[in-house]
Amino acid sequence: MNLAALLTSAGINIGICVLLLSLFSILRKQPGNAGVYFGRWLAEERSQRMEPFSLERLVPSPSWIAKAWECSEDEMLAVAGLDAVVFIRILVFSIRIFSIAGVVCIFGVLPLNYFGQEMQTFDIPFQSLEVFTIANVKQGSKWLWVHCLSLYIISFSACALLYFECKKIIRLRLLHITRSSPNPSHFTILVRAVPESTGEKLNDSVKNFFSEYYASSYLSHQIIFGVGKVYKVMKKVGMAYQKLTYIKGAAVHNKCKSFRYRCGLCGRTSNSIQLSQNETELSHKKIDDVHSNSITSHKECAAAFVFFRTRYAAVVASQVLQTSNPMMWVTDLAPEPHDVYWSNLWIPYRQLWIRKIATLVASTVFMFLFLVPVTFVQGLSQLDQLQQILPFLKGAWRKKFITQIVTGYLPSVVLQLFLYMVPPMMMLFSSVEGSISHSGREKSACCKILYFSVWNVFFVNVFSGSVISQLNVISSPKDIPTQLAKAVPRQATFFITYVLTSGWAGLSSEVMQLFGLFWNLIKRYVLRWKNDPASVPSFPYYTEVPKVLLLGLLGFTCSILAPLICPFLLVYFILGYVVYRNQILNVYCSKYETGGQMWPIVHNTTIFSLVLSQIIALGVFGIKKSPVASAFTIPLVICTLLFNEYCRQRFHPVFKKFPAQVLIEKDWEDEESGKMVEILQQLHSAYCQFPPGTPELGYVVSDGQSSAATENDAKNISKENKIGSFQPTSIRFPFSMLKRALASLALLVTMNDKTSPS
Amino acid sequence: MNLAALLTSAGINIGICVLLLSLFSILRKQPGNAGVYFGRWLAEERSQRMEPFSLERLVPSPSWIAKAWECSEDEMLAVAGLDAVVFIRILVFSIRIFSIAGVVCIFGVLPLNYFGQEMQTFDIPFQSLEVFTIANVKQGSKWLWVHCLSLYIISFSACALLYFECKKIIRLRLLHITRSSPNPSHFTILVRAVPESTGEKLNDSVKNFFSEYYASSYLSHQIIFGVGKVYKVMKKVGMAYQKLTYIKGAAVHNKCKSFRYRCGLCGRTSNSIQLSQNETELSHKKIDDVHSNSITSHKECAAAFVFFRTRYAAVVASQVLQTSNPMMWVTDLAPEPHDVYWSNLWIPYRQLWIRKIATLVASTVFMFLFLVPVTFVQGLSQLDQLQQILPFLKGAWRKKFITQIVTGYLPSVVLQLFLYMVPPMMMLFSSVEGSISHSGREKSACCKILYFSVWNVFFVNVFSGSVISQLNVISSPKDIPTQLAKAVPRQATFFITYVLTSGWAGLSSEVMQLFGLFWNLIKRYVLRWKNDPASVPSFPYYTEVPKVLLLGLLGFTCSILAPLICPFLLVYFILGYVVYRNQILNVYCSKYETGGQMWPIVHNTTIFSLVLSQIIALGVFGIKKSPVASAFTIPLVICTLLFNEYCRQRFHPVFKKFPAQVLIEKDWEDEESGKMVEILQQLHSAYCQFPPGTPELGYVVSDGQSSAATENDAKNISKENKIGSFQPTSIRFPFSMLKRALASLALLVTMNDKTSPS
Repeated sequence: MNLAALLTSAGINIGICVLLLSLFSILRKQPGNAGVYFGRWLAEERSQRMEPFSLERLVPSPSWIAKAWECSEDEMLAVAGLDAVVFIRILVFSIRIFSIAGVVCIFGVLPLNYFGQEMQTFDIPFQSLEVFTIANVKQGSKWLWVHCLSLYIISFSACALLYFECKKIIRLRLLHITRSSPNPSHFTILVRAVPESTGEKLNDSVKNFFSEYYASSYLSHQIIFGVGKVYKVMKKVGMAYQKLTYIKGAAVHNKCKSFRYRCGLCGRTSNSIQLSQNETELSHKKIDDVHSNSITSHKECAAAFVFFRTRYAAVVASQVLQTSNPMMWVTDLAPEPHDVYWSNLWIPYRQLWIRKIATLVASTVFMFLFLVPVTFVQGLSQLDQLQQILPFLKGAWRKKFITQIVTGYLPSVVLQLFLYMVPPMMMLFSSVEGSISHSGREKSACCKILYFSVWNVFFVNVFSGSVISQLNVISSPKDIPTQLAKAVPRQATFFITYVLTSGWAGLSSEVMQLFGLFWNLIKRYVLRWKNDPASVPSFPYYTEVPKVLLLGLLGFTCSILAPLICPFLLVYFILGYVVYRNQILNVYCSKYETGGQMWPIVHNTTIFSLVLSQIIALGVFGIKKSPVASAFTIPLVICTLLFNEYCRQRFHPVFKKFPAQVLIEKDWEDEESGKMVEILQQLHSAYCQFPPGTPELGYVVSDGQSSAATENDAKNISKENKIGSFQPTSIRFPFSMLKRALASLALLVTMNDKTSPS
Repeated sequence: MNLAALLTSAGINIGICVLLLSLFSILRKQPGNAGVYFGRWLAEERSQRMEPFSLERLVPSPSWIAKAWECSEDEMLAVAGLDAVVFIRILVFSIRIFSIAGVVCIFGVLPLNYFGQEMQTFDIPFQSLEVFTIANVKQGSKWLWVHCLSLYIISFSACALLYFECKKIIRLRLLHITRSSPNPSHFTILVRAVPESTGEKLNDSVKNFFSEYYASSYLSHQIIFGVGKVYKVMKKVGMAYQKLTYIKGAAVHNKCKSFRYRCGLCGRTSNSIQLSQNETELSHKKIDDVHSNSITSHKECAAAFVFFRTRYAAVVASQVLQTSNPMMWVTDLAPEPHDVYWSNLWIPYRQLWIRKIATLVASTVFMFLFLVPVTFVQGLSQLDQLQQILPFLKGAWRKKFITQIVTGYLPSVVLQLFLYMVPPMMMLFSSVEGSISHSGREKSACCKILYFSVWNVFFVNVFSGSVISQLNVISSPKDIPTQLAKAVPRQATFFITYVLTSGWAGLSSEVMQLFGLFWNLIKRYVLRWKNDPASVPSFPYYTEVPKVLLLGLLGFTCSILAPLICPFLLVYFILGYVVYRNQILNVYCSKYETGGQMWPIVHNTTIFSLVLSQIIALGVFGIKKSPVASAFTIPLVICTLLFNEYCRQRFHPVFKKFPAQVLIEKDWEDEESGKMVEILQQLHSAYCQFPPGTPELGYVVSDGQSSAATENDAKNISKENKIGSFQPTSIRFPFSMLKRALASLALLVTMNDKTSPS
């Protein structure tokens, strides 16, 4: 590939992006697409101001970019929560570091690479791209210290920026604890592996244990029930019914946020929905009756939520080893009410360690053997085999153009189709693992997808594909730097095109929500459903964070070897900054909040990328026979690792534990202002396992000071909940699958260049 | 080496052992040697009943064996504490598992190995020892399933035994918390990295912080002072002076145990010593004056001991993250008063992580490069070079016998001399690391010595010595099983002789205390010192635990490959059981208690040994072309690792944290019985940094409820302390160094066999 071809490719991609973004700026103005492009507004029941029809609605305008750009961080925090801000900080960090890297590499390294060897022609556009990489520098060149210096500058600025980002995010995280509206999860612990004792109910065991050992701070508890098969069937019936009533057009006025405290079963203060139709009430009643019969089939799980009077008491109870058997009375801080992954809570605690090992093994095997079936299917897709399988297309095979497309693109299509399996597979693994919260599951899936993509996009491409050579690399670790040093500059062109296709095109498809749009059309004109606020998806951090981090890794490793990648990456991150801000502000709804828990992943990946790029540089300097540059790179690796260790000591504990000082002060503040009583009252109704009213279970056990909600109250409000809590996972799935398709179609071109034997 | 030679060697070793043990049984009856053989009795001021001189005192008798054997575990626990019991449990575990392994391997595996190939001669005694190893089994032999089955039996019984030992030790550890006399360390935390604030003294900072956030449970605190150079000089003067007064013959009646609570400065109830001489009191006063002047040169450290009202409160405060900066207000449970490693407490907390990394790197480098200087010096010791260096011995060189000894033994002597450096070096590393307690330092040194000996005795011997081949092995990990499988059976003979020489001879030299005896003679007849109860050493777990574990590792790895090792090992462990029990009961004094903290090391090492032996077996089955046996070994490895993971979940947290339930119940018990007031009063005086009276510092800050000791009291009692607390490290060192010399002299023979080019 030469420079002109790269620039042409970039031009085409820019054209496609501009086209898609313009299209988006028109489509978003159409009221019919509000469900696609303004999901958050819908979920929060904010009305978008839609102008009456005018010509302006058909003209593309960049106003959405301005809006997305202008929104300040505080507004972002208020609207979308800390997780969104942390995600945006990843992009800000990337923009900053790759601006520095871009300036250093384009003006420092690129000319050296270009003039590294005497050239036959000076026709820049038709030079091979290899000329711009470090491969063009002569062996033993005296100018390699510039590369080394650039590496130093990039590494030090990355560390400095990381340090300040860490500080900032820690500050935001603490503010999140102190300033946010009171969070029931701060007062609650999840206790698992409650031992069964003869003659005592689990309920009583929990009550006795905590009122004995935590007498001063224990408030109440709530037993978790194992969900039997009958209940699961009933739940599905309920969902179908609820869908039905919704389509019938009941007016719903519930805010997304209100779910947090007013789950419906026991809350008192919620504005309950007034379903006016008599018949719907009747059918509700019927379903409730069947349901309450079925619920007697639930078993008590050996798990419970235990509520405490103060945040500090809850944190202490969650961190202390309770009894002499560490596998009994296991305590953790509870997730947020909407974050609870109920169906995992019944898993016996003693199974968890083996589940974790099993999923670890399974996902590692999946990661390594991913290419085996793909290669097999790709092997099948050779022309002669295809001709045998599909003989009726004989006529078509004769045309060269079609043959080229089929043999060229089919392998890539197969690879892409297999790639779509990855996020759902990883999510499945993470579910089996036994996370107690949706966010924990997503975080675990995020790590798995990250490892997967770093391995299968970076390393497998570098080590040129086959499973056997992958395994060879693992078995001879000392050759890794040299092998990487040989392979990475060679693959730099591919990585640049990967940024163009997977990065840029991915962003335009993300903002377009092509399949959301398509699904919306079907919903509106074929199925005649109305927009459902509960079906608004939450931001898929677990797929987007690995994407951004992977491109960051490509940037770090390629920047001094093939500096041309920097401008493309910079464009990607800036575009990503605008697009993701728009998506967070308008499209996705945040259902729960982890308080920036994903930052340690980002930090560790960035350090990994830095060290990897340093090791590759070490290998390159070795190959280029520049002992001085090699010698200077080793202290850099050590410094980076030391910096990482320092950050692990200085910052990471705050992501794992809440600081006592902050919690105690917040407790005092609430007690002084008299808010505490209200908070504690709301606590009882925060965690609802069975939203359709089942008050006869009486599962909130109070210690007498705060009364449980009465049956009437519960039934009254329970209807509200029916339209809130079941939806997300059921509707979200096709979106997240399909959304990525467009992004990858563009990638096909690139992959094809690689895989077809040209 | 043939069987006859081995048995001869064993016979000689048995003879030496019997001789030494008989000698010991006579020497121990002589009153003059009480300081050597009855150190604990001396330290505890128990009088041994020495019979008047009779002929019986000159006749060897096995009565000490009976006494050591008879002592029950409860008595052991009462006399020597939990750590000693745990150490004995390691031996019990080893005896049990190697009894099983011995039976299985001698009756199952050995005949198969012996009849593995058709033999020319049937003269068993003159068969090479190789005939008894697995090397003698034919390739593709059908009988390899017996080896595999033996491996299964050994692995499963080891796991089962480990499980029950774990359970037992956990039970003992909990009993140690509940039944033992109240331990001030349970009520105390060590807070480090107290931030300096302008206008506030550290003392006030600590007081304000804890009385603000731990108002209900905070009792008082005690600031730790940085020790200036002046103080260190004064301390040495004090020690010399104290030695002097002691030699003068002041009668001292202080028990070793009484130090625990009555450290002298502030305690009230101790029976203070009545030094009758006026002049000594006067000189005490002088020294105290100089000392109190010097103490003004101490700086306040950013560290303090904080005392709480209950055990539970202390544990909570030690586990919770205090502030939003994890590197400030760092809390840990305090070590026992005599366990505190004062000189490490002044180290700023922010240095610790880098110190840990530095010592890790240093000890790893030391471990890998250990053989480089040894080989170099050994190279120097070649005959011709020696002749150049020492030309005056020309006459001697001509005699063949002397030449043989010099060239044969010199390399081994050099190696042994270097080996003596290892424990002090590792202790040095562990001190630099910054442990806050002596026991922590010893535990860390124990791990380092263990890694060192496993690497340098097992792996280096297996991979035949040179540094380069060591590094080659690391760089090609997939060849390791095959290489091990080839090398271990070849080295089995060496390992058997290692058990004989290093194991058996080591034990006899341990019980003889040859250099203690020697030192005692010098003390009594040359220096004319009296026995000093404070100089009684504590049990050197950090050298003995790695020794026992290393022999266990040799046993596991060799048992199915070269079953002849089992009987020798079994004798070693049984002898060790008797010898170590005797040493613990009579010789060593236990100064502090970790509550069985060393068990996780034992557990992990045993699992490592098991997995290693399984991997070696896997390699051997591979070489012998027995795919069935190989296939059956893989699930065994997986099962062992799963078992380890289960134990890590089930047992190990109890070694790291105290269970809340146990502590709370113990608190209640003490409060109900009214003991708590007394315990809390004693708490103030438990931790004394400056034993010679420095009451003007007033470093115990009380919150008004319990009064600090008055100056007079303190001065009165401080004298007691002067003879208790400085000695251990100063006098103990030569013992621990020299004690091992005899053990290794015997090893020289074996090492020589290996190193000399025969």
